[in-house]
Amino acid sequence: MAAFSSLDDFRALLANMPAHDAAAQTAAAERNSQLTKPPGALGRLEDLAIWYAGWRGTDRPRISKKQVVVFAGNHGVTAQGVSAFPAEVTVQMVANFEHGGAAVNQLSRVAGAQMSVHALDLETPTQDFTQAAAMSEQEVVAALLTGWTAVDADTDLLVVGEMGIGNTTSAAAIANALFGGEASDWTGRGTGVDDAGLVNKTRVVAEGVAKHNSQDALEVLRCLGGRELAAMAGAIAAARSKRIPVILDGFICSAAAACLAQAQGGALDHVVAGHLSQEGAHGKLLDALGKTPLLSLNMRLGEGSGATLAINILNAAVECHSSMATFAEAGVAAG
Amino acid sequence: MAAFSSLDDFRALLANMPAHDAAAQTAAAERNSQLTKPPGALGRLEDLAIWYAGWRGTDRPRISKKQVVVFAGNHGVTAQGVSAFPAEVTVQMVANFEHGGAAVNQLSRVAGAQMSVHALDLETPTQDFTQAAAMSEQEVVAALLTGWTAVDADTDLLVVGEMGIGNTTSAAAIANALFGGEASDWTGRGTGVDDAGLVNKTRVVAEGVAKHNSQDALEVLRCLGGRELAAMAGAIAAARSKRIPVILDGFICSAAAACLAQAQGGALDHVVAGHLSQEGAHGKLLDALGKTPLLSLNMRLGEGSGATLAINILNAAVECHSSMATFAEAGVAAG
Repeated sequence: MAAFSSLDDFRALLANMPAHDAAAQTAAAERNSQLTKPPGALGRLEDLAIWYAGWRGTDRPRISKKQVVVFAGNHGVTAQGVSAFPAEVTVQMVANFEHGGAAVNQLSRVAGAQMSVHALDLETPTQDFTQAAAMSEQEVVAALLTGWTAVDADTDLLVVGEMGIGNTTSAAAIANALFGGEASDWTGRGTGVDDAGLVNKTRVVAEGVAKHNSQDALEVLRCLGGRELAAMAGAIAAARSKRIPVILDGFICSAAAACLAQAQGGALDHVVAGHLSQEGAHGKLLDALGKTPLLSLNMRLGEGSGATLAINILNAAVECHSSMATFAEAGVAAG
Repeated sequence: MAAFSSLDDFRALLANMPAHDAAAQTAAAERNSQLTKPPGALGRLEDLAIWYAGWRGTDRPRISKKQVVVFAGNHGVTAQGVSAFPAEVTVQMVANFEHGGAAVNQLSRVAGAQMSVHALDLETPTQDFTQAAAMSEQEVVAALLTGWTAVDADTDLLVVGEMGIGNTTSAAAIANALFGGEASDWTGRGTGVDDAGLVNKTRVVAEGVAKHNSQDALEVLRCLGGRELAAMAGAIAAARSKRIPVILDGFICSAAAACLAQAQGGALDHVVAGHLSQEGAHGKLLDALGKTPLLSLNMRLGEGSGATLAINILNAAVECHSSMATFAEAGVAAG
């Protein structure tokens, strides 16, 4: 039986998610204070390790299975000329993922992560959201379920990524609908539209947001999102149900995650921001989510690439935390 | 026979270092433009890969041997009460490195790097630089040579790190002597001195700089440096002689490197900054060197920890560059 069969079911699931293990987190903080380094000298690595320990429920965790899941979807809104690339690139890039030729394949290998790609009904794009809701309830629930079931039970660190020509337009519309402001505040150049393309894309975002004016974050996801965005949201929620920490990728991934955060306060407590994308509004979106990115390297590729690159930061943090000697073990004076 | 036996010898060596391979760099840039991603979408990873290719002399490089070398030295200036930790911690931490218990051990393992530690005459601290030159010419040359010979010929990526109670004081004095301004511009809290400690440390830096007022960057290294700083400078120079790219660590490593840059323009062209340390003046020092850090995670541990964490960024950049499919190979429309 499916974990949920309607948006109301999914909403109820979000309202009943597990919290972190406060005792394990406290024990991890105590261990951190005894490691052979000046207090705080590992900076954010210390915070990351303690946070990770809390979610995994042990003061001395290890990361044994890193999973990268890439979802692909097609967008009817490409009919509005919002991308520098044609829509058939989505299916071509899925083949590239399957053959190991994309950036995220190399980054997953470097990170020691298992990577899989899930193409969601590429032959059936979502509706053009300037004309109609992108998805029916049945369609968005199916996409959420694809994401939900993609997360393996033994995963202990998850990255979700995406591919979908047109999906920065969808993400900008979601962010605008959830957080307000002007369409131009949230619309960027994506894979590289020119000035005229940006004006057109901004118009499309504004039209979509005006047409689908809901206060309900999951309705926003249904009307302005895409299958790969819904699948990312479903995977992030599934990770939470298993207390698996998640690293966010860029603008599109963050927009998908934002739908969870706005649907249920605290829904992203098990999530850290992997990087700050060069896509213009990503910083503003991370601010809205209260997340500080780990990396800032002017990347703007999607695919989960920035988050996959950040896996090593979290892994290094956990390895330092769990394997360093304490002052007592090493016979070092504690200052 | 040693590669050099005086500071003048070393200076002459610096003036005759190899440059990067411009043809290989151009070929790498051409390859980068054909990879299956929007132009520029991998951000700094693209710049790093092209830069690395130029230094290694091939358009499709691999990083096969990553080497982390940690140098340790003791500082007479600790007699002035400049550190929150006692001087015997240096030798205790060397034992911790040798037994695998320090942060840099875990970070080296995560990075797939070979790590070694070189203790430089720990039983004979340098002179207190408020009283005399820290080292004789013979001593500084010996330390430079220790660094020079520590770099393996088959290394293709180098990190240099340090341990030495008192060495942020030495680094601050070097930076102040090389780049001017006030002692307070360059003096920070190191392992964690309190407000009164910072006032005292700033006084010590000012006294040292006033006493050893040389325009010669290698004389600055001799008079205000320490053995581990000279060894780092020697290792960075050795890497240049073999066209091995280097990742800089934090404030102390950057101060050692700055002596090379001020002795010979372009001496750090084979060097990238691994991270921005939380040690207050590190950003100012990197600005003076014209280097933009890869990471900024509030780390301030030294040991080469920040640079070792950054190895993965450079390795990931090179793996994407050399292993991704081109548009033609993958049959993806190039937009």
